[in-house]
Amino acid sequence: MELQPLLDYIGKFIKLTGEEQSALLSAIRVRKYLKGQFVVQEGDICKNESFVLSGCLKTFYIHEGQEHIVMFAVENWWTADLGSFISQTPADFNVQCLENSVLAQIRFEDLQQLYKEIPKLERFFRIIIQNAFVAAHKRVINNLVLPAKERYLDFRERYPQIEQRVPQYMVASYLGITKEFLSKIRNQSVPRK
Amino acid sequence: MELQPLLDYIGKFIKLTGEEQSALLSAIRVRKYLKGQFVVQEGDICKNESFVLSGCLKTFYIHEGQEHIVMFAVENWWTADLGSFISQTPADFNVQCLENSVLAQIRFEDLQQLYKEIPKLERFFRIIIQNAFVAAHKRVINNLVLPAKERYLDFRERYPQIEQRVPQYMVASYLGITKEFLSKIRNQSVPRK
Repeated sequence: MELQPLLDYIGKFIKLTGEEQSALLSAIRVRKYLKGQFVVQEGDICKNESFVLSGCLKTFYIHEGQEHIVMFAVENWWTADLGSFISQTPADFNVQCLENSVLAQIRFEDLQQLYKEIPKLERFFRIIIQNAFVAAHKRVINNLVLPAKERYLDFRERYPQIEQRVPQYMVASYLGITKEFLSKIRNQSVPRK
Repeated sequence: MELQPLLDYIGKFIKLTGEEQSALLSAIRVRKYLKGQFVVQEGDICKNESFVLSGCLKTFYIHEGQEHIVMFAVENWWTADLGSFISQTPADFNVQCLENSVLAQIRFEDLQQLYKEIPKLERFFRIIIQNAFVAAHKRVINNLVLPAKERYLDFRERYPQIEQRVPQYMVASYLGITKEFLSKIRNQSVPRK
């Protein structure tokens, strides 16, 4: 079943009955996006929380004309402008597909309704928002205190599959360094045979 | 009752029965801190989520020998190194009392137990973590894109009581500007009679 990865993911945190699974799945829409397509656009309200069934996406903002990548997402990750989604205010970020992608999406209003029907989902979303909070917090602190090389090693650990799937200049943007400096760090870090 | 403000606060988000209130209150410890005392110390694991019954606190980190204030808390605010608390890993921040303070605290382990006894609390904490996420996110974005004067006006709106209670150099640290520059902004912003 197309949505099995989503049920498996949720099953790691809470146990849903068959009936609850059906109620949940009836609120999910599966949507296909093409490479380059935007899922969230800065200034719009982020209407969906999206679970990646397949594909790869980046979350970024533009500051003084320059793109800054704050997050990547691949299979089994959630993506959204979470701040915009949970407060239903205009997004600060863009979410754009780097590959053709298939997303399982839940709309804000449907989620509020589901919380009433399946209170266990409160626990699930509490945990994933906590995890997002911890990740966002670590990112801000790491950018402040870690040297670029350690940020790169941290990136490779956090996103083991992504380095092969996205252009190097995007990894550099995520790390807040130039492409040339990333090259230098990689040559130091990756043992050559 | 000393803990009434906490029950009132929680009551804005969820309705607890008398029995649930008792279970919750039995897990809360009220603790008094003196001005200058640390509630959380960088490098330690943040063991409690704290609700301010009275007093005023600052959350800060030290970077290259300099103190950077990320948050203040007064009556009816929660304070913690939330990232440390929810992941039970060493704190990046310090939380220190700027006045003698009385806090209602709940320990991490007791909260996990309470989630089992009172599943409604999942909803409550989902919402307050969401709010913390949105606030932290806005702060990062505002620091990037807003000029200092607008950050100051935003601070005054967010923390209406705090400007009178904390030294100006701390407000300047929170805004990421010098005390002199803050003075200049205030003179422009506050109409004199």
